[in-house]
Amino acid sequence: MYSYTYLTEVISNIFSKMGCSKRDATTIAEILLKAELRNIPSHGVLRIKDYHLLWKEGRINTSPNLRIVHETPGTAVLDADKAFGMIGAKRSMEIAIEKASATGSGWVATRNSNHFGIAGYYAMMALEHDMMGFCVTNANPTVAPTFAVERLLGTNPVAFAVPAGKEHNFVADFATTPIARGKIALAEKKGEKLPVGFVQDEKGYASEDPSELRRGGSILPLGSDRVHGSHKGYCLSSIVDILSGVISGANFGPFVPPAVAYLPRKDKQVGEGTGHFFGAMRIDAFMPADEFKNRMDEWISTFRKGRAAQGQERIIIPGDPEREAEEKIMKRGIELVPAVHDDLKTVADELGVEFA
Amino acid sequence: MYSYTYLTEVISNIFSKMGCSKRDATTIAEILLKAELRNIPSHGVLRIKDYHLLWKEGRINTSPNLRIVHETPGTAVLDADKAFGMIGAKRSMEIAIEKASATGSGWVATRNSNHFGIAGYYAMMALEHDMMGFCVTNANPTVAPTFAVERLLGTNPVAFAVPAGKEHNFVADFATTPIARGKIALAEKKGEKLPVGFVQDEKGYASEDPSELRRGGSILPLGSDRVHGSHKGYCLSSIVDILSGVISGANFGPFVPPAVAYLPRKDKQVGEGTGHFFGAMRIDAFMPADEFKNRMDEWISTFRKGRAAQGQERIIIPGDPEREAEEKIMKRGIELVPAVHDDLKTVADELGVEFA
Repeated sequence: MYSYTYLTEVISNIFSKMGCSKRDATTIAEILLKAELRNIPSHGVLRIKDYHLLWKEGRINTSPNLRIVHETPGTAVLDADKAFGMIGAKRSMEIAIEKASATGSGWVATRNSNHFGIAGYYAMMALEHDMMGFCVTNANPTVAPTFAVERLLGTNPVAFAVPAGKEHNFVADFATTPIARGKIALAEKKGEKLPVGFVQDEKGYASEDPSELRRGGSILPLGSDRVHGSHKGYCLSSIVDILSGVISGANFGPFVPPAVAYLPRKDKQVGEGTGHFFGAMRIDAFMPADEFKNRMDEWISTFRKGRAAQGQERIIIPGDPEREAEEKIMKRGIELVPAVHDDLKTVADELGVEFA
Repeated sequence: MYSYTYLTEVISNIFSKMGCSKRDATTIAEILLKAELRNIPSHGVLRIKDYHLLWKEGRINTSPNLRIVHETPGTAVLDADKAFGMIGAKRSMEIAIEKASATGSGWVATRNSNHFGIAGYYAMMALEHDMMGFCVTNANPTVAPTFAVERLLGTNPVAFAVPAGKEHNFVADFATTPIARGKIALAEKKGEKLPVGFVQDEKGYASEDPSELRRGGSILPLGSDRVHGSHKGYCLSSIVDILSGVISGANFGPFVPPAVAYLPRKDKQVGEGTGHFFGAMRIDAFMPADEFKNRMDEWISTFRKGRAAQGQERIIIPGDPEREAEEKIMKRGIELVPAVHDDLKTVADELGVEFA
C-alpha cells in the first residue's frame, strides 16, 4: 500500500527522468493516480510500462511545443507535438474553459497526441468553473462496426461532467463498448469465458472466448448485436472518432496508432497521432449557476430516490462509485497488484528513480 | 399511395385549421413528412391524431411568442411558448446556426416545447451551412435506469450530422434504448414475444412480454443489462435529459409531460413543457471546410470498404438507410397504413380539410 503523495513523487520523478519538465511530469503523475484513486486501474500505474516503451522507441516528445494551429473565439485546434497524452489534453481543456468564459462555450480538437488516461479527468476540470465539461478521444482499433468484422474503431470513451449544488457532481465516463479491453484481457489470463455480446470471431459470429482478439476477432459496440441496438453504439463511437480524429487533423478509424509499443503503427497515416476533443459550456450562459445547481440537485435526488429493482440496494448516479472509491483510497492508500508493482520497479530502476 | 406534395398540402391545411400560421403549418407538415420519407413512420403522419388531441385539450399554443430568455454570443435559451415542438425546435436550430457563424459554435436549450418529430431533421439543418449539427430531446418517461424499476427517463434520442464532400453526409439519429417504443407496441398488437433485453417487469426481472409496459414494467437503456453496459446507455440518456431538461428550464426525468393526450401530466412540474438542446459547429472553426470534407470522405469510404461479417452484404454508414428510403419514397409516393390513413381522415373531416 502506497500513499498518494509518495507515488506522485515516484511517478513524477520517472517522467522527469524521461525528459519531461517538472510541471509536465507532475501532471502525468496526477492524472495516472487519479485513475487509481477512482478505481480505474486499467488507466493508472499499469500504463507506465507502455508509456516508457513508447518513449524508448522515440514515439514521444517530452519537450513538446504545444501550438494552436487554428482558432475562432469559441474553438481551437491544438497540435500536441507528440507529447504524452495528458500534456496536450490538459492544455486543450484549459483553452476550452478560457474560450467558454468569453463566448459561452469552448471547443478544442487536439491532434498529434497520445493515450491520455481517463477522459473523466478533463471533463471534471470544468466543474470548478461552474461549467459542464465534455471530453472524448479515439483509440487504437479493436472494435468492429455493426455487420463488420474489421477493427475500424477504438473503445472511444465519452466523458461528461455537470456541476451540482448540495449533491455530488454528475460525472459520466464510459467506453462506447459493452466492456473495456482490459477486462477481456483479464478473463483470458484467468482462463474464464466471456458472456456472449462482448466479442465476435473473425467471421463475425458471437463468441465467448476472450482470446478471439488474438485471432482476428473484434470487440462489439455498445448494444452488442443489431437486435439490441449495436448500430447505436457504432453511431456513438463514430461520432467520437469524427470529433477526435477527423476534424482535429489526427488519425481516425483504423489508422489511430496503438498506445502500446509492441504493436506497429499502420504504414498509412491519415493525420498526426491520436486525437481528442474537449468542450466546456458555462452554466450561466443558459441560466444563473445557482438556479441550475438547485435543479441539478433535484435531478440527482429524484433519481437517487427512485425505486430500485428487486435485489438491488440503490440507483447509482453517474460518478458515485468513482467518487466513493476516491474518498476511500485516498485515506487507505493505493494498492498496486504485484505485476504492476514489479513493472513500475523495473522502469524506476532503469531510469535510476528510487522506488521501494 | 400519396404524393409528397399532396400530403404536404393536406397536413399543412390541418395545422392551419388548428390556428397555426401558414408558415408554421408548412414547417410541421414538412418535418412530419420528412419522417415518412426517411422511413421512420413512428414519427410521421401517425402523430397527427395525438397532436390534434393535445391541441383540443388546450395543451398547445398555435400562436406562440417564441422568446429568447437568456443568451451569450454562443448560447441561448428559447422559450417555445407551448408551440408544437417543430416550431420552437426549428427556430432554436436556426439560432444555433447564427451563433455558430459568429463564434464558431452555437448552442440553444429550448423549454416549454412539445414532441418535435425526428431529431435528425434539426441536426441536418446545419449541413448546408458547412457545420456539424447536434440535437437531443427528452421525452416522456418509459425507461428505467440500471438497477431501477421506476420510469425515470424517456427514450431520449441523439442526432448528429456531419457534412461530407463526394460521399453522402453522415447522419446518426438514434434513441438511447435498444428499441423504439413503437416497435414494442407493434409486437404487442401482433401477439409476438420480444427478445430478452428490451423490457423488464415491475420488479426488474427480464421479460419477453411486450405488454409489461402496461403493468408497471419499463424499457431498458441501451446495453440492456448491467453486464452488457446498460449503465452506459443510462449515462447517455441522462446527459440528454440534463441538456434538454435541466439547463433549459423545462421538465426533466419523470416530470416530462406525455406526448399523448390520453396520459395525464404529472401533478408536480419542475419546469415548463418538454425540453430540447441544439448545437451547430462551424467546420472552418477547426479546419478549412474542403479539407475536412476530403477527410470525411476518406472516413466514410474506409468504413464502407471494411470487411463485412459472414452473411452481411455491407457495412452501413449512419444515414445510409434513411437517405436511400428518402430517394425511393419521394419517387414512389408515401404509403399510409390503413389505421394511420383512417386517423388522418378523421382529423381532416373534423377540421373541415379535404383529404381523399
